[in-house]
Amino acid sequence: MTDHPWPDVDIERDMLAAAGLELVAGPANEGPSPSAVEAMIAANDPVAIMTCWARVTAAAIAAPSDLALVARLGVGLDNIDIDAATRRGTWVTNVPDYCTDEVSDHAVALVLDAYRGISRLSAAVRAGTWDPSSGKSLLRVREATVGIIGFGRIGRMTGSKLAAFGCEILGYSRSLAKGRREFYEAVDLAEIAARSDVVIMHAPLTPDSHHLLDDAFFLSLKRKPLIVNLGRGAIIDTDALVRALGGGYVSAAALDVLESEPSVPSTLRERANVVLTPHVGASSTASLIDLRRRASEEVVRVLRGDAPIFPCNLPARAESAQA
Amino acid sequence: MTDHPWPDVDIERDMLAAAGLELVAGPANEGPSPSAVEAMIAANDPVAIMTCWARVTAAAIAAPSDLALVARLGVGLDNIDIDAATRRGTWVTNVPDYCTDEVSDHAVALVLDAYRGISRLSAAVRAGTWDPSSGKSLLRVREATVGIIGFGRIGRMTGSKLAAFGCEILGYSRSLAKGRREFYEAVDLAEIAARSDVVIMHAPLTPDSHHLLDDAFFLSLKRKPLIVNLGRGAIIDTDALVRALGGGYVSAAALDVLESEPSVPSTLRERANVVLTPHVGASSTASLIDLRRRASEEVVRVLRGDAPIFPCNLPARAESAQA
Repeated sequence: MTDHPWPDVDIERDMLAAAGLELVAGPANEGPSPSAVEAMIAANDPVAIMTCWARVTAAAIAAPSDLALVARLGVGLDNIDIDAATRRGTWVTNVPDYCTDEVSDHAVALVLDAYRGISRLSAAVRAGTWDPSSGKSLLRVREATVGIIGFGRIGRMTGSKLAAFGCEILGYSRSLAKGRREFYEAVDLAEIAARSDVVIMHAPLTPDSHHLLDDAFFLSLKRKPLIVNLGRGAIIDTDALVRALGGGYVSAAALDVLESEPSVPSTLRERANVVLTPHVGASSTASLIDLRRRASEEVVRVLRGDAPIFPCNLPARAESAQA
Repeated sequence: MTDHPWPDVDIERDMLAAAGLELVAGPANEGPSPSAVEAMIAANDPVAIMTCWARVTAAAIAAPSDLALVARLGVGLDNIDIDAATRRGTWVTNVPDYCTDEVSDHAVALVLDAYRGISRLSAAVRAGTWDPSSGKSLLRVREATVGIIGFGRIGRMTGSKLAAFGCEILGYSRSLAKGRREFYEAVDLAEIAARSDVVIMHAPLTPDSHHLLDDAFFLSLKRKPLIVNLGRGAIIDTDALVRALGGGYVSAAALDVLESEPSVPSTLRERANVVLTPHVGASSTASLIDLRRRASEEVVRVLRGDAPIFPCNLPARAESAQA
């Protein structure tokens, strides 16, 4: 296990031990460097790699004498060289639905924070200012048209929650045919840019989504929206966002993920209309227990020779992966 | 118009002028003292009193030679001596539904802020701490049982929005028969105290609701709830709440109204688990325009001899009130 953003690995160790497996754990909190991960893999010759944030490179995947799976403790797969795993016949798995509620709760929380001024006004009251007239710049959530980019499991849940506030919901995914259904209208990116008062990013980071929100996107905005990012930092070109905030193309930003995390650019930190949370969108007491149990179960399942429940690739030589 | 928590009175003045009526306006922002209101009334001999936060006493209501109505620019009526108005044959009106969305948006915003840690974590990131492991203490909104005290127009709207997150909704109003229906279960106060993870106060301030949440209520809590107040400050005994926070009977508080407002007790301001907003729950750009237009229309309507749309009393001698 390359890294773990929780203090201990008792859940993982106990579940693996019950199946006769030994866990070797990397550092808590901060993800180790790719070379540190490669050294750890080379030293331990694991049959499975579990990973949170650390990069699992082709070299790390090539090193073990036998490697049945790389299990991501999370949803996104951008830190794993999936092609390298596929080539050597190794499963890649994730846990796609442990945090559907958390991420969508967090997205709506960030929208409501901006519309109702909670963090800003609470800081002002704490600093000694009680000003009821500050309410005149707050906004009615019902009047917002919300464009959601990445309209899978999580994006739809965010949309259904905001629909209960009376918002108009626009959804965009590359695979989604245009048209109105249920509580949303499926549109293209240009329409998201033209019609949204709030743009929420729920897409995964892939080569196609890298810097999807760039100068051209921000220039195409019509309604000076709030930008909310619950996907990955690098989906937004940070410098372009800073320019868009400065030029008034967007009214505010609420970001749970940053291109440079854990480093926070002062160009974002010092703006009053930017709210930042430290990549906790998927986290809750309940979701982290879910995640750790289910990732551990997946490792046990694949190592005893069964197919994974949440495969993210089809290994080139499946028979060798089920050793 | 005794007071107005917005900088100008152009909307009110223009609408009254169009009906041939003259507006005399008291101070912006801070409500004047009862004696200042009484002096203003005595000096101007109005046929109608419009009021936001200032107290309109029996003496103020008795002074004018003819007084058709006291129009509250808002929902709550705790600052108006309704009995005195009724006795002298004066209508009391309010605008009950201009802010149903805003207050319920604000209530959900405060719940989500507590469950997702937005204001707390955003302040930490701003101060230089990026700690993803802080997510382990966040909470899944779906798992919350939410007890709403004051289950009228606004309370139901808050309930319906939180039901979209999967919360179990308990509603209490004195007039509400117990039982399960639509998206909620109507219960008594004891059950609210026993079952709620979140208690949201939406009740109006009346002699019956004064200090409704007192030591006895906090002692009867079973699940260490978050306490949210969108009603009036004096519905909660502040000292009892501080004791309940200190003793661990409640986990946190999010208050838009305070017993002592505009003064903020340091016992609340200095606690990390208390979020405070400055009585802006009803406010938005849209709601304040709605409110000001509709209160002015009500004054014009009653002064031309029609019955009000939102009467809050039945004046003793209606014929003299319609002079």
